[in-house]
Parts: sequence; structure tokens; C-alpha cells
Amino acid sequence: MEPITQGELVAVRRELHRHAEPGWCEIFAATKVVNTLTQLGWQVQFGEEVISRDARMGLPAQATLDFYYQQALAAGADPKIADRLRGGFTGVVGILKGMTKGPTVAFRFDLDANQGVEAAAPDHFPAREGFGSIHTGVHHNCGHDGHTSMGLGLARAITMMRETLTGEVRLIFQPAEEGLRGAKAMVAAGVLKDVEYFVGCHLGVQALAVGEIVAGYNNILGSVKLDIEFTGQGAHAAISPHVGRNALLAACVSAQNLMAIPRHGEGDTRINVGSIKGGDSRNTVPSAASMIVELRSDNEVALQYLKEAADRIVTGAAGMHGVTSRVEQVGESRAASSDPELSKVVALAANDVPSVTKIRDAVDFKGSDDAAEMMRTVQSDGGKAVYFGVGTELNAVHHNPYFDFDERALSVGVEVLKRILPPLGAAKS
Amino acid sequence: MEPITQGELVAVRRELHRHAEPGWCEIFAATKVVNTLTQLGWQVQFGEEVISRDARMGLPAQATLDFYYQQALAAGADPKIADRLRGGFTGVVGILKGMTKGPTVAFRFDLDANQGVEAAAPDHFPAREGFGSIHTGVHHNCGHDGHTSMGLGLARAITMMRETLTGEVRLIFQPAEEGLRGAKAMVAAGVLKDVEYFVGCHLGVQALAVGEIVAGYNNILGSVKLDIEFTGQGAHAAISPHVGRNALLAACVSAQNLMAIPRHGEGDTRINVGSIKGGDSRNTVPSAASMIVELRSDNEVALQYLKEAADRIVTGAAGMHGVTSRVEQVGESRAASSDPELSKVVALAANDVPSVTKIRDAVDFKGSDDAAEMMRTVQSDGGKAVYFGVGTELNAVHHNPYFDFDERALSVGVEVLKRILPPLGAAKS
Amino acid sequence: MEPITQGELVAVRRELHRHAEPGWCEIFAATKVVNTLTQLGWQVQFGEEVISRDARMGLPAQATLDFYYQQALAAGADPKIADRLRGGFTGVVGILKGMTKGPTVAFRFDLDANQGVEAAAPDHFPAREGFGSIHTGVHHNCGHDGHTSMGLGLARAITMMRETLTGEVRLIFQPAEEGLRGAKAMVAAGVLKDVEYFVGCHLGVQALAVGEIVAGYNNILGSVKLDIEFTGQGAHAAISPHVGRNALLAACVSAQNLMAIPRHGEGDTRINVGSIKGGDSRNTVPSAASMIVELRSDNEVALQYLKEAADRIVTGAAGMHGVTSRVEQVGESRAASSDPELSKVVALAANDVPSVTKIRDAVDFKGSDDAAEMMRTVQSDGGKAVYFGVGTELNAVHHNPYFDFDERALSVGVEVLKRILPPLGAAKS
Amino acid sequence: MEPITQGELVAVRRELHRHAEPGWCEIFAATKVVNTLTQLGWQVQFGEEVISRDARMGLPAQATLDFYYQQALAAGADPKIADRLRGGFTGVVGILKGMTKGPTVAFRFDLDANQGVEAAAPDHFPAREGFGSIHTGVHHNCGHDGHTSMGLGLARAITMMRETLTGEVRLIFQPAEEGLRGAKAMVAAGVLKDVEYFVGCHLGVQALAVGEIVAGYNNILGSVKLDIEFTGQGAHAAISPHVGRNALLAACVSAQNLMAIPRHGEGDTRINVGSIKGGDSRNTVPSAASMIVELRSDNEVALQYLKEAADRIVTGAAGMHGVTSRVEQVGESRAASSDPELSKVVALAANDVPSVTKIRDAVDFKGSDDAAEMMRTVQSDGGKAVYFGVGTELNAVHHNPYFDFDERALSVGVEVLKRILPPLGAAKS
Repeated sequence: MEPITQGELVAVRRELHRHAEPGWCEIFAATKVVNTLTQLGWQVQFGEEVISRDARMGLPAQATLDFYYQQALAAGADPKIADRLRGGFTGVVGILKGMTKGPTVAFRFDLDANQGVEAAAPDHFPAREGFGSIHTGVHHNCGHDGHTSMGLGLARAITMMRETLTGEVRLIFQPAEEGLRGAKAMVAAGVLKDVEYFVGCHLGVQALAVGEIVAGYNNILGSVKLDIEFTGQGAHAAISPHVGRNALLAACVSAQNLMAIPRHGEGDTRINVGSIKGGDSRNTVPSAASMIVELRSDNEVALQYLKEAADRIVTGAAGMHGVTSRVEQVGESRAASSDPELSKVVALAANDVPSVTKIRDAVDFKGSDDAAEMMRTVQSDGGKAVYFGVGTELNAVHHNPYFDFDERALSVGVEVLKRILPPLGAAKS
Repeated sequence: MEPITQGELVAVRRELHRHAEPGWCEIFAATKVVNTLTQLGWQVQFGEEVISRDARMGLPAQATLDFYYQQALAAGADPKIADRLRGGFTGVVGILKGMTKGPTVAFRFDLDANQGVEAAAPDHFPAREGFGSIHTGVHHNCGHDGHTSMGLGLARAITMMRETLTGEVRLIFQPAEEGLRGAKAMVAAGVLKDVEYFVGCHLGVQALAVGEIVAGYNNILGSVKLDIEFTGQGAHAAISPHVGRNALLAACVSAQNLMAIPRHGEGDTRINVGSIKGGDSRNTVPSAASMIVELRSDNEVALQYLKEAADRIVTGAAGMHGVTSRVEQVGESRAASSDPELSKVVALAANDVPSVTKIRDAVDFKGSDDAAEMMRTVQSDGGKAVYFGVGTELNAVHHNPYFDFDERALSVGVEVLKRILPPLGAAKS
Repeated sequence: MEPITQGELVAVRRELHRHAEPGWCEIFAATKVVNTLTQLGWQVQFGEEVISRDARMGLPAQATLDFYYQQALAAGADPKIADRLRGGFTGVVGILKGMTKGPTVAFRFDLDANQGVEAAAPDHFPAREGFGSIHTGVHHNCGHDGHTSMGLGLARAITMMRETLTGEVRLIFQPAEEGLRGAKAMVAAGVLKDVEYFVGCHLGVQALAVGEIVAGYNNILGSVKLDIEFTGQGAHAAISPHVGRNALLAACVSAQNLMAIPRHGEGDTRINVGSIKGGDSRNTVPSAASMIVELRSDNEVALQYLKEAADRIVTGAAGMHGVTSRVEQVGESRAASSDPELSKVVALAANDVPSVTKIRDAVDFKGSDDAAEMMRTVQSDGGKAVYFGVGTELNAVHHNPYFDFDERALSVGVEVLKRILPPLGAAKS
Repeated sequence: MEPITQGELVAVRRELHRHAEPGWCEIFAATKVVNTLTQLGWQVQFGEEVISRDARMGLPAQATLDFYYQQALAAGADPKIADRLRGGFTGVVGILKGMTKGPTVAFRFDLDANQGVEAAAPDHFPAREGFGSIHTGVHHNCGHDGHTSMGLGLARAITMMRETLTGEVRLIFQPAEEGLRGAKAMVAAGVLKDVEYFVGCHLGVQALAVGEIVAGYNNILGSVKLDIEFTGQGAHAAISPHVGRNALLAACVSAQNLMAIPRHGEGDTRINVGSIKGGDSRNTVPSAASMIVELRSDNEVALQYLKEAADRIVTGAAGMHGVTSRVEQVGESRAASSDPELSKVVALAANDVPSVTKIRDAVDFKGSDDAAEMMRTVQSDGGKAVYFGVGTELNAVHHNPYFDFDERALSVGVEVLKRILPPLGAAKS
């Protein structure tokens, strides 16, 4: 067996980029992962084995799930595998056990693309090279195509280290990271059971040059995503305004008061009402309104405080205007920081990689990531976790239509990742 | 017996003006009424006989009640009478029955002075003439001193008509009109039982010259007066803002949403948040806030709608901010209009009075008056009611520190009032 | 020449119903009106002659204007006429002068269909009979198809009365009544110049049986329609919320405070925020929001008060949140009431029509109608105006997908309309 | 000369406690300081020499200033001194120069008592011992009486070290710390000119046992104190609500939107609307409202952001409701942290004091203190600053009616303070 080449990493990445799939719909990507791991001789679990049905959040409509299933088949996905993944069970876990006993180390990668229309102009590299997303309105603008590609590269590398393994390695490929919807469902299915060390990485977050490594992210913000609906009663706004029950006004009052949730003395908080849509007709009291909201904090207690306050506010605002409200939690991830011990290991590993030119200490992540939910789970169980950064120039910021990274970062990532095992005692060096 | 003279009317009015007493505290005034009616040979009921204890609204603090009791005694009130009036039972009803059967006619007058500091400057007639209120912060700025004076003048006039009476006359002297607090308590005590015709009058409302009579007021607005309190929890605004429960913010949200109660398609509505007071310290989350509110409508259904909406809003706003709320109704009167038949009778009576120079048709009252609660009661029981206007120039508008009326209006009022009985069949002309 | 038959009225109505066109796009309908009036020998003005370019409000997008132009051509509209109507000039005026001098009488009808998806179920008469709107999302749910049909019927009837005419008759066919967008533009073009009597009518408003006539509508509410936009600045809601300028929050604050504009003491008011749409993404501070609003009153001063308050509120709310705002007035009509003299004429005319079974006195309209703008114009110039009701059962209320009226009402309407001329002195009886 | 005894420190403290004076009124206290320093041979500056007239914030009413002046004279203050302090110039600076050149070290103490009614119950030590505040509504509930006492103890100690001084010592006694009103005025008068080292201390902040020293406070929050007034127009709430301009509603809208100022990505922020008072009468549109507000942040840029947002919000809310607004800044202090070098010096000094039993590293202050304004000034000029904690059990938290500290802490404080000079090179050890 040969180490994966830069060309192979690029080929995988571009194939995934082209077949971009939104969260819970990653059938093409997951099928590819299943096939690759199987061919490498790993024990492979996928579908409902690794995704707890009731712990999934923010599933798309059935039509969307079906559409991507059909698309995956049309693109050549093996129906035997695809049938087990379809309907929102698009996670995969590969397991490789060492010759002797040792620690269990989990590496985690995310599979999903994001909402948004990808740039089609020739100054966008994927467009120019012909691997732009074939699914209008969905594209890889956060680098998860690269993450999955690195994961498969790492699988090959570890397979080649097989004789030296002194513990167990798990490669976790998670669906639906965007919106913080997928990690909990894999955790609930037990994929982190007995994991002592958890390792994840992200491309291009505060590491903006190929060859730069951030040894760990701290203060990844915990977050809760809420979809809120208000249902009232329409009425002719001139003849019988008193008969109406104004759902839109309840939403407006909620929005103002959500933004006014008092600061928390123990943690940093963030609140955003991302959108409101309500009412149709100028002369009718609005009978319905919807609102999308996110809450964040670097402190679990403060995040819980935000959730309780948001519930109170929505219920109170609805009551004020005689309408009903419904709050659906469509995503959630806890706050987490990297364990300094593991950040040191990452730095150590990176130090041995010739293509690494700069190693930065741990920095604040400033945003949220579903990996944090897994980190907290491992940490709560007594293990250690790290989420580190793989540097790359970016063509545009994450979630921008022109987002793109430098593919040379993929090899660097694989090289660092594989060197993490020996210092953890999971492989002989 | 001689008819009451203008001089006597003025003397009574000035004595009452000087001894101004707020609602539920009119012991000096009510004692005077009891004495006068008794001397005239009327059957007199007062105190708890004519005031239903539990139907009273907006009572002042015990200390206030006690203070005015002591003041009345000091001013010479008979303790035997005062003891039955004290503690918020300051209503009086005089009854005089005719020789033969006939309709029961009630005339109603109000006794109370109002909050506010009376002008002390020499351009204010009561100050110049030395009969300004001796009770700082309370004075007759709505003319009720004149109303009571006219009521006692009418008592003398009817006594003189005694031989011609063919029904029953009741003279109702009501406490606590300001704030719409007293009428319900007299109604609940049964003072309007079997009343066929109800007559009330007001000085200087849309009748701004002595000699002018408004034959009836229509669309007297129904109103509800609410005192609202929010109780939350204080906290250091920098160290632990999340621990606070912001009562003031709940009040602010309530105020905005109260003002935004939708218009009613069937009736005119009015909402006012008259004041908010909340919080003490700049660096503490406010733990308490209070709010005074009034709701009004010319339509009973719409007034009920406002009350329900206000309850919902206050409860919802409190819930939003995790505080408790208490809504106390401290005043209420329904909407009413004069019956056209009785307005015609008033016009007829006025037409016979030489000092009447102009008679206007019924007009909208535009404000609220506790008399309306009595009107509605009589009307609901199948009787007729009228509230008419006795004209007078005003020195300043009602409730102004400089409010004053022309005392010549008092004689005009008595003359019109007494002429109302014959056309109603309650006296032979 | 024969009087128009019920069958002809129905045929015209159904043809217009089928080719439903929204405001400013009524090319098919207006072409038909032009052709009919021309054939009857009337002097016909249309297009920019009768529509003042700059006074038009709420024009649709150019693409919409073009679409209906093409549709009208495809449906057989004469391009010579259509070319003069296209681009938002879809008004028509027919003029017929009497043999002798006399008053100028204007009859006004509206041409446009409304937004909304028409019911396609067989229990909807137009669907069952195959004349449902061919333009999805636009249909005649307010009866203007019937109005236009009556107008053409009236044209025939007056043509037949030609020898008796002693003044001038104008038939005004107005576009864009929905949203109160068209009347001002025809007024500004001078179509009401020298009109002494203005007559309009509506199907099924508080007259819910064929054969019933409401002799006049009063208190047609004046109204202003506003489209409001807020433009702020997006920002990552977790990393840099302070950089954002929240357009959605400005809209929410506006909505709440618009609803809280104090009642007006001199007139009834109505306010509705019909819809808000703002923000796209859960984790981005919303950079844009739009809002549609209407203000109404039965009192011009109060309507002006609402407009000024709305401007202040929007500007203030935008300023609070550091965003810009734009308020565009997309419709306006003043309040009006029918002149009692003309209501008597309508009643007189109706009284002579055998199919009229009930004539009601003037009633409140309770809503708004662009006809009122024309009424006020005529009244301000010293003329008289009436807007009366032609009764019909309705299958569902106006603006409902199932709205439909009883076509027998059309003949009744024409019969009443034509009998209005003689009592006005515009025709010999 | 003898070192100050614990008994003397206690006596001074109790005398100051008894004669509690609010900010800008500390004539009794400042006179005592002037006298003591003069007797010790220090150069003493006070009154307008050390207080810049125009930089003073939040002065009380003239009557209050006069009252405390009279009280101080009555309590024996020397009129020659008091006359220079009166009218809000109650700062004092003592200067003592060493024999040789060396650094200038400033020690700062605050003089003022706070608003609040002191507990009078016997379980309150000052009450029991008879030294409770003689000025109802003002008392030392923050320990500044102890601070001043320590300052005078330190003056004695340094005087005794006079021969060893190798630089200049300034003892700054600041008025009006509460509300962050006084520091800027002393800075503006130049009292920190050429200061290389600035030292301040506070009793009982996160050091809750006698013998405990906190070596430095970090992240003292910058703060701005605002008094805000809205002026509108009253109107009868039923007859002419449209004529009113609702100042209270503007305050409510402001309060809600102030609380909703978005979080800042670069610094922690705090906002509090401490109180609102507006409106008088239930049936009048409120014409006036006032609001007290504070803004805080650990980041100067974020504090500036809060100020700008608050200005926008108040102006916008006033504009929305057609009222005028006035924002007065009545207090301000910047954020500051102790320099680690000086914290080390404090720890070194404390380490030599036998009565010190525990030395804690620097901790977050969590609140605001006017000392920070002086710290920032010195730091901006290239100097170093420290604000450290002198431990004491507290009977109740700061600003509580039962606040009291253990007087033994005073000696500990003086012992630590005097030992700070040698390691700074300002005295030979």
C-alpha cells in the first residue's frame, strides 16, 4: 500500500465538492467513505447503527431527503449502502484495532455542504476547474469536502501503520454539522463510548496560510438553534381589528425582548434573531409569523439561562397578543475548549512535519462547531479532546459564495493527524 | 319655609370648598347633608346602609381615612353621624314620598374633591375670598362643591313642593366620583332599586356660560382604572445581571403593548398609561415597578375587550421577564347616554326658567363620569336616565389648579332641577 | 338598438373574470371598454390622456406590465389601443353630451382584479363554469368584473336615452382600485373637471341579497398605503455583533410603535402592519427588512396625523438602530361620505326598478375605496357625490378565494344607474 | 513621633462614619485631612487647586452643597479651610518630597459616603456603638471612611520615614467616587502630573478576611453614568390623546432598546436602566419622564460603542414619539487593570507584614471604581498603577444598610501601604 498522494486527496475533495449534499442528505459522500474504509479493511458501521433516530435535529423535508438519495444513486452510489443511509442516517464510523491494548482515539470529520448559491464566475476556482456544486443552492463553503478528504487520507495512513497500533482508532464521519444538528445523534448512538482521546480539525479558521497549524481552539461557543412559530388569527384590519390575534406583533415583541435578555455575569453570551417572516396582506391582521433564532455562550450555565429566558419571552409575547407559539430546537452543541495536553501533542506532531512552517498556540474559536459537543462528551467521561486548525489561504471567508481553500493544505493536515497517534500511546513511534 | 337663596347656595358651596375632602373621606360634607336633609324632614340613610362594603374601589390608606375623620370632628361634625360615615362609608340618601303613588325619581350629586394643589394666588377667586381648601393637595377642582350645594338647594325646593308630590324622590349624594370609585358601591347597596327616572347634572361641561343648559350628555365613556404592580428581583447590574428579574422592563413592555392594543371595530377606545415608577438605584436591576392605567370606551363590549387584552398583556410581559404582576381595578364605570325622552324633559324644564338663556341639544360628553354607572343601572332595569349640563364660565378647565365656576350657576341649576319633576309625573305642576 | 340583456352582461363579466388583470395591467379589459364605447358612438379618451403619469402609485414591475400586455395581445386585444394603454395607463373615459345644456354627471367603475389564488374546486362557480382566472395568483375577488360589465351596460342604456340627455355624461373606467392607486392619477389628469354629480357603486357591500339597494355609503375610510424598507449592515452574529446594524430590529420596533400611535380624539383610526420580512440567515445580523403598512381614518386630519406619526416612528426606529429607512406611499384615498341629496336620488331611482325589493338608507362603508378620492374631489369643487350599494348574495366575503356574486345583480345595477340621470336634471324623464 | 495606633485609626474612622457626607460635600472629612497633613508638615493643596471646576460631574443641588457646608461648620470645621472646599471642591492632595531625587508615587483614597438609609438596629455595629451616620439617607456603606482613615495613618507612617524618602509621595484624597464623578476632575487639575507609580486599595472586595491581601484588581469595568430626560406634551387622554406627546412611552421604548444593544465581540458589556419615573395623572398623557442609566465594559472601544448606541437610541425613541430628550453624563471612569509589576510589589510588601496571613494573586474586580480613571491616566503617561484589596469580613455586602467591616483591617492596610515605597525606589529600605 502506498501513502495517499496529494493528487488523490484533491480528486476526492473535488468529487465531494461537485456532489455537494446538505446535512442528513450526504448519501454520496457517506457511501464513498463506507467503500473506502471497507476496502482498507476497517470495520465499518453506518446508518442507524451510528445515528440515534430520536436525537437527530433539524431534518430537512422528506422530499429533500428523497431527492439526494436519488441523486446519489444516479451518481453511482451502491444502493445496498445508500438504502441504509437514506432518510437521515448518513453517519459512518470506521474502527481499526491495534495488535495490543492501548487507548481508544477518535478522529472526527464532517460531511455536509451548506446552504447558499456557489459563485459560478471564472474567478472562483471550483467553477473554473469544473467541479462546482451540481446542486444549486447547496455547496461546500465551509471546507467539509476537504475535511472528509483528509479523513480518508488519514484512514490510508493509519492502515499503513497497522502493525504499530497499540490501541483502537475510530474515524467518525459526521453528517449535519451546519446548524449543529448531527453530533448529538452520533453521541447518543454510542460512537464515543470508551474514547480516551478525541481529535478534530478545521481548515482555515484563524490559520490563514498553508503550513500553519493552530494547536488547539478554545472557547468554542456552545449554541442552540431555535425555529419559532406564532399562530394567531387573521381579521380585516379596518372592519374588525379586535377580532384579529396578531402573530406578527408577537414575533416583533419577542425579537426585541430576546435581544434584551440581560448579559450573564459568568459567561459571554450571543443572541441573534436571524429572520422574521410574517403576514401576507396589507389589510389583514397577520395570523402567522416565523422566526429563526440562535443563542450562544462560552458557558453552559449561561447557555441554559439563555434558553430558559427565550422560552419565557416567546411564551409571554404570545400570551400578550393572544396567539400560540411553538419553539423547536433544531440544533445544539455545547461549549468546549481543547485540553492543553492534547494541544501540546498536536504541536509536537506538527513539529515533525516538514511542510509545517508555523505552529500557533491555542486561540479562541469565536464561533460554534458541532465538534464541541463531542469534545464535551469525551471530556465529561474523563477523556481529553482537541480541535485544531489546519492553515490555508482562503479566497473568501467561510460561508461566502466565493469560499475556497488551497488544496495543498490537505496533505499537511493528513501528515499532522497521523503523527498524533504515537505520543498518545496509541501507536509505537 | 322659604326657597333657598343664592346667598345660601354660595355659603354652602364655599364651606364645602374650604373643607375639601378626597373620595371616601367626605365626612364633613356628608354630615352636613345628613343634617340638612334631617332638618327638612326627609328620611335619611347613610353610611353602610347606602354603601356596599365590598363594592367600594380605590379606598385610600387607613391613615388618610382617619385624618379626614379627625378633621371633620375638629370642624364641628356631629360624632354620632361621623362615626357611621368613617372608614369609607360617606354616602347619603334622602327620601321623600309623595302623597299619592307615582314614579320614583332619583337625583344624584357627588361629594368629593380631587387631588391637586389649589392655586393660592389672588387671581384665584377662592384664594382671594378666603375659602381656598384647607387641605393642601386636595381641592374642589371639578365643581362637586357646587353639585352638593345644588343638591341641598333642590332638597329645600322639593320639600316646599311636598304637597304636590305624586311619587317618591330620592336625593343621592355619592362619594368618590373621581376615579369612578363610588357609584358601584351605592348601586350594590340598592339605592337605585325601583328608580324609574334618574337625573344628574354637571357644571361647566361644554356649557360655558351661566344661563346655558345642555339637555343631555351622550356617549359618556365607560372606563376602567387599573393599578398594576410588577415584582421581580434585584441584582448587581454588573456582577450578576442574570440573577435579576427586571420588573421595570416588564412595565415598559406592558406600556408599549397596552398602547398597541388594536382598535375595536365596534366602538371608540382609549388607553392611557398615566405613570410608571420603577427602580431606585442606577446599578441595581429594578426589582419593583408600578403603573397606573385607564381604559375607556363608548361601547361595553369594547371596554371588556380592553380589559381582557390588558390582563393578557400584563401577564405576558411579567412572564417574559420572570416577574410577577398584580392588576387591581381601582375604579370602573360603564358607558352611558342620556335617554332622549328625558333630555326633552330637561329642555322643557329649562325653558320655564327665566335665568336660562340658551338650551342646547344633547352633546357628547367626551370624558367619563361615575354617574354613567348609575344611568346604565337604571336603564338596564327599564328606567330612563339623563345627565345634563349646567352652564357656567370657567376660570380654568376642570382639574386645573385655577378651576373655578361662576356661583350664579347654582341658582340656575336648582331652578331647572326642581322643574323636572312635574313632567315626569312625579309632582303635580 | 336594444337594451343590454342579462345574458350579455353575464358574458362580459365572465370574459373579464377569465382574463383577470391586476392594477395598471388591465389592457384586455380597457381595450374592451374602448371598443364598446367607440362602437356606441361615445367620445372616448384613454391612456395617458386620462392618467397622469406622475400621480400613479404602486406600479408593478416592468416585467409584470409587459406580461399582461402580451397576454392581452394574445387574447385578441387591438394593438393600436393596447399600445396606448400599456406601461400603466389603463384608464378609459367615455363622454356623451346631451342635446341641451345641463349638469355633467360622472359614473365611475373599476377595472382591476386582485392578488390571490382563485379557488379551483367545483363548488366555486367560476371554476365549475370554466371562466376561472387564467392568471394564477390574480383573480376578480372583489366584483370589479361585474362593475365593468354594469358600466358597459349603462353605456348602452344611456346611448339609448341620448335624445333625452340635457347635460353631459362621463363614464370613467378606473384602473388599480385595489391598493387605492389609480383614482388620484385620473383626477390629476382632469377627468372630473366640471363634474357636478359623481356616482359610483359596489356589489355586495352590506347589501347581501339581489334586489337590495343601499342608497349611499358613508364614512368610507380614507387610507394611506406605505411600503417601508430598512437597510442596515450584516455581521457575524457571534464574532462581531457590534458591527451589525440590525434592520430587522428597526422594523420590529417600528411595527410595535406604529400599532401604539395614540387614538385620535376627532376621528376613528386604523393601523395595520400587514407583513414584515427581514433577515436571511440564522447567524447573521439582519441587514434588510421590509414592511407593508396601511393607515386609515374617517377624518382627513386624523389620517394626516397618522401619516406624520408613522414617518416619525420609522425614522426614529431606524435612527435607534443605526439603519436607514425609506417610506414609499403606494396608495392613497381620502375619506368620504355620500351626499344625502344624492342618496335620495339613488333611492328614488331604485324605487322605480321592479327588480328592487328593498332600499336601505345610507350606512357606514367600514372599509376604504378609491372611489372616495373622486368623491372628495367633486365635493371639494362644489359638486355632489354618492357611492351606493348593489345587493347580491356572496358565496364568500370579498378578497376570499371563493368570492362570487349572483350575476342577476348586474341587471338590477344597470336599471338603477340609468334612472339616476333624470332626477339630476341630466336627462328628461 | 509615634506610629498611628489601631485606636487612633478606629477613632478617625468612626468620626468620619458619624459625619457621613455625600460626594462633593465632604467638607468635614476634607477639613480633617487638611488639618492632619498640615500638622504632619506636608505641603497641602486643596479646593479648586486640585479640582477642575468644569470637569466635575454629577454635582448635587446647591441646597445640598450648602447644607453639608453648614453641618461641617457646626461640627467644628475651620471656616478658613471649609470656605475653600465648599461648593463642590472637596479634594485634598498632600505632598512630601524626599531628600534625594526618585520616583513620584501617588496613593489615592476616597472620601465620600453613599446614598442609603443606614441600619439603626442594635445588630448593626455603628448603631450599637453610637457612631451611625447623623445624616439620614447618607452613610458610609462602601468603606471609604476606612480608606480615609488608612490614608491618614499612611501619612503618619511616611512622615516617620521622611529621612529615607528618595522621591516624592503624593497622598490624594478624592471626593465623589460613588457615581464615578470625582477622579476626572482631580486628573484635569493635574494632580497626577509626573506620577510614575499609582497605588490605590479597597476594603473587602473579594478579600473577605482580615489578614488577606489581594495583590491587584484586574478588569475594573469602565463605566458611564447617564441621566436622561424626555419632555413631551400632556393632553387629556380621552378627549385629545392625539395632542399629547408621550414622554413616558419614549422612555419605555428607550429602556427596552438600551437593553437590546447588541453584545460587543471584543469586550464584555453591561447595561442597566436603574429607574424610570414618568407621568403623574392617570388621565393625562405623560409629558415628562426621567431615566437613570449606566453602561459598563472592560474594553474602552466597547464602552464608546455603548455610549454611541445609547445616544442613538434615546434620540430615536424621542423622535418616534415627538418628544425631546436630554442626555447628561453624570459620571465616568475608564476600564483599567493593575500592572503585574506593581501587583508583585504589593505582594512583596504584604509578605513582610506579620498580620498578613494570605496573599492572593490579582483577580477580576467585576465592578467599577473611579480609581481606574486615575490608573488609566498614569498608565497612558507611561507609569504603572495598582489597585489592591485589603481583606476584611463584611457584615453585609457593599451598599447594604448593614454594611460594616472589621476595623482591624485598617492597621493591616497601613502596614502594607507603607512597605510599598522601598521596592519602588521611593524610599530606602
